Amino acid sequence: MTVKVAVAGASGYAGGEALRLLLAHPEVEIGAVTAASSAGTPLGQHQPHLVPLAGRNLQETSAETLGGHDVVFLALPHGHSAEIAAQLGPDVLVVDLGADHRLASAADWQRWYGGDHAGTWPYGLPELPGAREKLAGTKRIAVPGCFPTGGTLALAPALAAGLVRPEVTITAVTGTSGAGKSLKPHLLGSEVMGSASAYGVGGAHRHTPEFAQNLTAVAGVPVTVSFTPVLAPMPRGILTTASAPLAGETDTAAARAVYEKAYQAEPFVQVLPEGSWPVTSATLGSNNVQLQVAVDVDAGRLVVVAAIDNLTKGTAGGAIQSMNIALGLPETTGLPTVGVAP
Amino acid sequence: MTVKVAVAGASGYAGGEALRLLLAHPEVEIGAVTAASSAGTPLGQHQPHLVPLAGRNLQETSAETLGGHDVVFLALPHGHSAEIAAQLGPDVLVVDLGADHRLASAADWQRWYGGDHAGTWPYGLPELPGAREKLAGTKRIAVPGCFPTGGTLALAPALAAGLVRPEVTITAVTGTSGAGKSLKPHLLGSEVMGSASAYGVGGAHRHTPEFAQNLTAVAGVPVTVSFTPVLAPMPRGILTTASAPLAGETDTAAARAVYEKAYQAEPFVQVLPEGSWPVTSATLGSNNVQLQVAVDVDAGRLVVVAAIDNLTKGTAGGAIQSMNIALGLPETTGLPTVGVAP
Amino acid sequence: MTVKVAVAGASGYAGGEALRLLLAHPEVEIGAVTAASSAGTPLGQHQPHLVPLAGRNLQETSAETLGGHDVVFLALPHGHSAEIAAQLGPDVLVVDLGADHRLASAADWQRWYGGDHAGTWPYGLPELPGAREKLAGTKRIAVPGCFPTGGTLALAPALAAGLVRPEVTITAVTGTSGAGKSLKPHLLGSEVMGSASAYGVGGAHRHTPEFAQNLTAVAGVPVTVSFTPVLAPMPRGILTTASAPLAGETDTAAARAVYEKAYQAEPFVQVLPEGSWPVTSATLGSNNVQLQVAVDVDAGRLVVVAAIDNLTKGTAGGAIQSMNIALGLPETTGLPTVGVAP
Amino acid sequence: MTVKVAVAGASGYAGGEALRLLLAHPEVEIGAVTAASSAGTPLGQHQPHLVPLAGRNLQETSAETLGGHDVVFLALPHGHSAEIAAQLGPDVLVVDLGADHRLASAADWQRWYGGDHAGTWPYGLPELPGAREKLAGTKRIAVPGCFPTGGTLALAPALAAGLVRPEVTITAVTGTSGAGKSLKPHLLGSEVMGSASAYGVGGAHRHTPEFAQNLTAVAGVPVTVSFTPVLAPMPRGILTTASAPLAGETDTAAARAVYEKAYQAEPFVQVLPEGSWPVTSATLGSNNVQLQVAVDVDAGRLVVVAAIDNLTKGTAGGAIQSMNIALGLPETTGLPTVGVAP
Repeated sequence: MTVKVAVAGASGYAGGEALRLLLAHPEVEIGAVTAASSAGTPLGQHQPHLVPLAGRNLQETSAETLGGHDVVFLALPHGHSAEIAAQLGPDVLVVDLGADHRLASAADWQRWYGGDHAGTWPYGLPELPGAREKLAGTKRIAVPGCFPTGGTLALAPALAAGLVRPEVTITAVTGTSGAGKSLKPHLLGSEVMGSASAYGVGGAHRHTPEFAQNLTAVAGVPVTVSFTPVLAPMPRGILTTASAPLAGETDTAAARAVYEKAYQAEPFVQVLPEGSWPVTSATLGSNNVQLQVAVDVDAGRLVVVAAIDNLTKGTAGGAIQSMNIALGLPETTGLPTVGVAP
Repeated sequence: MTVKVAVAGASGYAGGEALRLLLAHPEVEIGAVTAASSAGTPLGQHQPHLVPLAGRNLQETSAETLGGHDVVFLALPHGHSAEIAAQLGPDVLVVDLGADHRLASAADWQRWYGGDHAGTWPYGLPELPGAREKLAGTKRIAVPGCFPTGGTLALAPALAAGLVRPEVTITAVTGTSGAGKSLKPHLLGSEVMGSASAYGVGGAHRHTPEFAQNLTAVAGVPVTVSFTPVLAPMPRGILTTASAPLAGETDTAAARAVYEKAYQAEPFVQVLPEGSWPVTSATLGSNNVQLQVAVDVDAGRLVVVAAIDNLTKGTAGGAIQSMNIALGLPETTGLPTVGVAP
Repeated sequence: MTVKVAVAGASGYAGGEALRLLLAHPEVEIGAVTAASSAGTPLGQHQPHLVPLAGRNLQETSAETLGGHDVVFLALPHGHSAEIAAQLGPDVLVVDLGADHRLASAADWQRWYGGDHAGTWPYGLPELPGAREKLAGTKRIAVPGCFPTGGTLALAPALAAGLVRPEVTITAVTGTSGAGKSLKPHLLGSEVMGSASAYGVGGAHRHTPEFAQNLTAVAGVPVTVSFTPVLAPMPRGILTTASAPLAGETDTAAARAVYEKAYQAEPFVQVLPEGSWPVTSATLGSNNVQLQVAVDVDAGRLVVVAAIDNLTKGTAGGAIQSMNIALGLPETTGLPTVGVAP
Repeated sequence: MTVKVAVAGASGYAGGEALRLLLAHPEVEIGAVTAASSAGTPLGQHQPHLVPLAGRNLQETSAETLGGHDVVFLALPHGHSAEIAAQLGPDVLVVDLGADHRLASAADWQRWYGGDHAGTWPYGLPELPGAREKLAGTKRIAVPGCFPTGGTLALAPALAAGLVRPEVTITAVTGTSGAGKSLKPHLLGSEVMGSASAYGVGGAHRHTPEFAQNLTAVAGVPVTVSFTPVLAPMPRGILTTASAPLAGETDTAAARAVYEKAYQAEPFVQVLPEGSWPVTSATLGSNNVQLQVAVDVDAGRLVVVAAIDNLTKGTAGGAIQSMNIALGLPETTGLPTVGVAP
């Protein structure tokens, strides 16, 4: 099988990462690469690491340029992907790396993003219970946010097993590429190097309702989420530290057993050996999630730490994993399980 | 007044920072600078930024070399400072930057550090209620750990005011100098650059009982502390994110008012204007603490973010602030309130 | 003496550094702080490290707001400073941190910057022969570019002593703040972290004629300069590596002697002990220049390495050093000789 | 064809990178992985990014453990590889990533490394004239040093074409992994982050004779090399800036043409489009070399800038490229041409 794939938003970080991975995918042929203000310039000017595509010209993002492909990746600002997606035929597999089709609740959409809710698509986090069934054969995929990818996988087994009470706190340390290639002063190298900062504190980050939606579905009861993102001086990677009060007596060994069982068949999730803690660089460029778990008896809490690459498993890798399922390909096709370190 | 100050452990990061600040202190004359394995070599070889002291030779750390000074700073591994301190006369002001004299409970000391408990000295966090009284005129100061400095100041006002329940979670993102100049593989530049990692998770970090001791004293009831340190790719800085369940209904404005009142007279603590969030680089090299507060209504939690320089306010700057109080000098003497940024 | 100083361009990196240093200057009172698009906003929003000035409001940059001061620092884009300076009275000491008044040759100005040449002011590199005489009592100072500061001091003694032929190559590795707070994609943290890149290669960088002007004056014969700047992932610092063919037989000891003699009376220049090589972090935040010299017998070249902080000695610190001379103050007043490391 | 490959020194950076690439090589089966002090521990403890090999135990490095493989990679300190290689049979393809077999001159070996010269093996830089012939079918490969890889490819076309005089200067900015996983104070994260430094200045770096050997062979006349390495705060990457005096009149277009012709058939070398300059992050994790060229008319010099990943093309990728040639496989087998950015 060869599927022809277009990537919209190819000059940005998410689009670039999609292309990097698609270049290594044995069943994919890369078709149109499109952009907004950079249309008309060669891709190599924006993504000099994508050597085999350096000479490709960026086209305008439109239903015309994206038409005629089997799969279309949309790496666009929220609002834009819904607009474009609505113009693409029902037989095209549309993979939305943006936020437009993640939330089930129109009220949540309204509160956090504003404007009309574009509807809800099958959610591209295959490791969640029931997700693979919804993704198989689908023509529309909502790729999760990078923070909810790490945080949901960190907490889902504990909530599903009733190990913890449904009141979770998450602090996630992220590399700067999560903010995109936006020309904002606080994202300048001079500002981020040598510095850590928090933002979207106190429930203000738009990934909060997505966390709650995922974790509530897993727990079967409403889960409250206190989420704090921290910007750290690194281009890639998310280190999620999550905790919740224990529901009853337990210890680290028992908690580890729950996680090992939950993820034993997962090709991209590694519960690390006892005594090893996740390091984001070990996942760099790979589709892996590395996890470790501890019970803090004194504090009465379960603590979970998870490392991912925000652009790979957290965005474009997760997207291709879901695409593989939708197309009936082996789920791991073309996806790296080896990181680039140091 | 000119006080003669010796610094033991002058080749390390804490000792170097003490010297950097003491060089700018108008009432201080720097006496002996001592080290262990580096004794006999010039200080400039280890601390090339301390230009006025570059030619000074490091002496052995001993009661002899440290004798004859008005003040002795001990920047030594735990255990060593208690041993040396025991040999210094009662008229010498001994400022211990290590852990030996921080914990009040011998059982805690035994559990977290092992060996004999050396006793408890006045605790060098002047912003805590009652601390200045204990520090005035003292001849022995236990300088707080870098994490407890940020986390205690982040949570104390809320616990003292009864805003939150005594169950706190703290995730603190630290620069690598907090781990000292230790030759460990995970501290190599190749390992830490581009990467974040957690350690001492699940209540395993030795600063946990110090947090609990401080916060319990402030709250008046036992406080449980879930503490997770994260190593980030930067030399200096700690960004503390702390949260706790609200004790009753409140909002961000009310919480901010509590913090502004608590810190209005503090020369080194800034509650930032609404909408501004702390950035560690803004505190670099200064003795400042920058704070911001939010109430997360959905999650029912208060969230506090604090930025410090782990080596300045978190170690050597806090030490000098306490020394000033002990000596009867104006508390801010010689301490920078301006950071070095970008 | 108290001089009232205004800073134009106070929201940028050069202006911020000037304010950081001026805050510690015992003879200075800070007057107006001005900006362009940020006028009307508090300084603390742009420079959160300048705590004592956090509440100051940025004014518009104009002859009115800058009037009534003893000294005016201009940290403005080239062209703008000449325009503003022309409106300031002859009794005001104007310190131009920009390029407008550095070049002596109108043809050079035309070629490298374009537009009218605004004239040539006394050049603020006091360590150059004859510079202090021109700066004493002057009311106009052209602050050198950051690259020419490091490179000129690295090569001047060798050229003055005839150690080398007048054909020099300079590669200077710079932190990102040298490029200012410009919103350009290649200056984003995601782009610069983990990466080195060259720019302005092949004689295309505007500092090239300034190098040639300085070195030709010192050598007494025309000096050709091959200059390559490299952007490295750090906020501050310039490491200059410079070399030139030996004019005759010599060795490292003889070359070191030339440098030690040239700089022995300089308060801010340190020729490091044999075997030590400059590290930019050792100069961070200080007005120091750290130098080392070697003769490569096989290649027949003298190699010099110099470290500075591009914002301090390379911009605002050098500016204040020259201001001190112009005002008749001790040259080192208010300027740090101790770096902030690690 | 499936070749069984052992890697000695598998706990270090060069060995880890070899394993990362070999895992993706379709004709390779990974056999023994060996180490010195880490023997007996699981590989995952040292290389957590090599997920498929995480459970493999490190064996002792010896002729026994390395026996029975088709190919043996030696990533060992100099001296050790010669010692082990001498014990491996003549039918085993031995790929030495260390220095032992690079230099042709025993006198050079003696001067720069000391001890007995182990002999000279075919040099693994296929892009050099005549190199592929010597590598085809060989059983012994000397992999080039990381600096000579970038610098030789940067200068060879110009020297071969007689564009420049044989007196070159090279300043190469390197990431820290080039120094290996050595526990030295100056390689600690706290020291390298935010800082640039030079080392091995004045012809003191051991790669200097290797440069001279390569470039002299290409030029046909003795080439003098002034080489200055600079350590920059990034884990990977080398940005080489090289220059030499022009031999006659030329311009940038003509020089570019020489380079484009020299490298037009090379699968891993890209002469960038005019106006684009190399950025190391674009080559991260790939076997690519990205180059740009300029003629500086004023200075009368050709300037070349080259970016590589020091661990990939600079070490393990170059090694596998040469292995492919030696084994008669297509040269590009298993080697990435797409970098991981940002």
